[in-house]
Amino acid sequence: MKVAILSVGTELIFGQTVNTNATYLSQQLNLLGFDVLYHYTMGDNPGRLKRILDIAYEDCQMIITTGGLGPTEDDLTKEIICQYFDDELVQNEESLSLLKAYYQQMNRTMTDNNLKQTVLPSKAIPLQNHAGTAPGFWLEDKGKIIISLPGPPREMKKMFLDEVIPRLKSLVKDFLYYKTIRTFGKGESSLETEIIDLVHNQTNPTVATYAKEGECSVRVCAKGSSMEAAELACKRVIDEIKNRLGEYIYSYDDEDLVQVVGRKLIERSISISSAESCTGGMFAERLTEISGISKVFDRSFVTYSWDAKEQVLGVKRETLENYSAVSSQVALEMVKGLYNITGSDICIAITGVAGPLPDGDNPVGLMYIGVSYKGEIFVEKFQMRNIDRKWNRNYAVLKMLDTVNKLL
Amino acid sequence: MKVAILSVGTELIFGQTVNTNATYLSQQLNLLGFDVLYHYTMGDNPGRLKRILDIAYEDCQMIITTGGLGPTEDDLTKEIICQYFDDELVQNEESLSLLKAYYQQMNRTMTDNNLKQTVLPSKAIPLQNHAGTAPGFWLEDKGKIIISLPGPPREMKKMFLDEVIPRLKSLVKDFLYYKTIRTFGKGESSLETEIIDLVHNQTNPTVATYAKEGECSVRVCAKGSSMEAAELACKRVIDEIKNRLGEYIYSYDDEDLVQVVGRKLIERSISISSAESCTGGMFAERLTEISGISKVFDRSFVTYSWDAKEQVLGVKRETLENYSAVSSQVALEMVKGLYNITGSDICIAITGVAGPLPDGDNPVGLMYIGVSYKGEIFVEKFQMRNIDRKWNRNYAVLKMLDTVNKLL
Repeated sequence: MKVAILSVGTELIFGQTVNTNATYLSQQLNLLGFDVLYHYTMGDNPGRLKRILDIAYEDCQMIITTGGLGPTEDDLTKEIICQYFDDELVQNEESLSLLKAYYQQMNRTMTDNNLKQTVLPSKAIPLQNHAGTAPGFWLEDKGKIIISLPGPPREMKKMFLDEVIPRLKSLVKDFLYYKTIRTFGKGESSLETEIIDLVHNQTNPTVATYAKEGECSVRVCAKGSSMEAAELACKRVIDEIKNRLGEYIYSYDDEDLVQVVGRKLIERSISISSAESCTGGMFAERLTEISGISKVFDRSFVTYSWDAKEQVLGVKRETLENYSAVSSQVALEMVKGLYNITGSDICIAITGVAGPLPDGDNPVGLMYIGVSYKGEIFVEKFQMRNIDRKWNRNYAVLKMLDTVNKLL
Repeated sequence: MKVAILSVGTELIFGQTVNTNATYLSQQLNLLGFDVLYHYTMGDNPGRLKRILDIAYEDCQMIITTGGLGPTEDDLTKEIICQYFDDELVQNEESLSLLKAYYQQMNRTMTDNNLKQTVLPSKAIPLQNHAGTAPGFWLEDKGKIIISLPGPPREMKKMFLDEVIPRLKSLVKDFLYYKTIRTFGKGESSLETEIIDLVHNQTNPTVATYAKEGECSVRVCAKGSSMEAAELACKRVIDEIKNRLGEYIYSYDDEDLVQVVGRKLIERSISISSAESCTGGMFAERLTEISGISKVFDRSFVTYSWDAKEQVLGVKRETLENYSAVSSQVALEMVKGLYNITGSDICIAITGVAGPLPDGDNPVGLMYIGVSYKGEIFVEKFQMRNIDRKWNRNYAVLKMLDTVNKLL
């Protein structure tokens, strides 16, 4: 079934709020096997809302709206939809008693404009709001379905999960299965070149590539009459992709690189510490996003200056002077120093030129990563292809994570 | 002038990527005095893209597209727009030499599909991409304007700022002056309450509030027949806002908190070092985003474990045992230890519970910041109202930056 998502809200069209509702609903609907064709966003404007309802129903049987159900004057979504379906708004008693109970529980007095929230189109099935005040509704008429949900993401999600999904499931014929294969170390166009025949020739499953800040994913997605059939349809293609891109793949389970690395370290109780120069603490910051990482990660040294490298890690002054701070020799002494201090199973050190300006003879994007693991110490050199400081730092951290992941 | 934003990308319609581009462009266009009426989002689908071009031009004179300009087969935006405007794609020599230079600089071989990026509609003005490979373009024909930008936000923003804004300014009759007043330490609704009369009663300038990850901004924006007139119209309201919110304001110049702090430290040659527990290196990482910060920032210690706090900073075991790691006493010993090691003008240490789970008796969001500056040492305690780990870590870093900013 073809679906359009309509997001109503002046804060969206003014750019004050990012439209995460449309993203969330798209994700959920796709998983359930619906085809989302369009997202439309507009302010609280009756004329534009009517117009988009007309347009959307030309292509789609179902529209899901978010926003504009609240108590204030500019909340008009319900009124416009009601007109569109030649219906009238009537008091919904269940919604009214829920609203009264909500105010009582909060020990607050209900202002009159709140009553506006509890009238609903007479033909609609009410969708009660257990995380806020405005109820939503499900309305079916003349082969068209409209589902109206509140704008605040927390209320919208709860209503969607509790009240909408059970009703949607009864509408779906196909089951949908998908896998996101995540890779690192290969650009999008070069990656697509390797699997272009699969991208072109597949209809079930479909194969598509996505790039995101230095990482690249391949999504394989199939429909089937059962979940097993859909999964089976994916499997053959996933195996083929595995054959072609194996060395670049780090996850099949929608975990990103830091989640994979963090999980493996924790599961295997492998301790890690880091010494960072150009990345300025970003490696540690990413790793400590992972809840539970304290089991294996105890510290990081951000040694930005020569003095810090010398005093904290014991890098020799003459090494810095003879080879410069961005050198294989310094990376090696950093990781050795780090290992002497922490004795962690994995020690990783980085020094490089994040940019935007080169550092003496060292070009922007030149990086050295020093690693010690199981008695072995090595240094990897690489040159990034970008002059953007932020991008380089981010990519350098991904490269560190990738290096650790390959050890594990 | 009325504008529609068209976001093209299967990853958007599948809900894999949040559409931050539309939000960003809406914000920028509103600031420039354009009226954004709609956001449309669709997959890389020729028929739907054509259809939305038709619909959007019924209401708007200008369309800005993002996405679908890349090298892969499913990137079709340019082709469809070219058909729509009865134009043909021709090789753009400047784009081609930029792309070749890009690949040469990266020491990579350019695959053939990359050439696809450098053809542009013959009537278009090319918009060069200095942050990636796909150029954009500006096409005007029969009273319609279309501006096509790449999908990756970093590339899109750079192109918009460098290549699009100067051209947009020539379309606007009025001069537009605006100031973004940035605040920290007050929530959006509480901040809006203080200036709600200004938000409601002003038409020139307009006053609007924006919240973003713990920070809050007030935008004052006026139109005028000259820049001076527009500036003058803003000034009175800005002064009034200054009166009401003075203590929370940290910038009038669109610098964010880390930029303000970094600039002041560098200008005044005030050295700084940090010891981080719950923020895991994020303070150092943010500060080292600032180019030139190496002049004043030489190191940070990410001391996550008890051992690290003890061995690196000299926090006493009994202090950890008696008061727990998240305590005023530990924050104090952390900053004392840090000062003993680095002797930096400003030393700042943080310990806290980022969540999602409480740490013993310490609730999620409890944080202590220890600071030493000019012979004084103090500890600030604060409790965040959120259980989200990511949000808490980010807010804690903002709080650290705010603390440093207030010293300067």
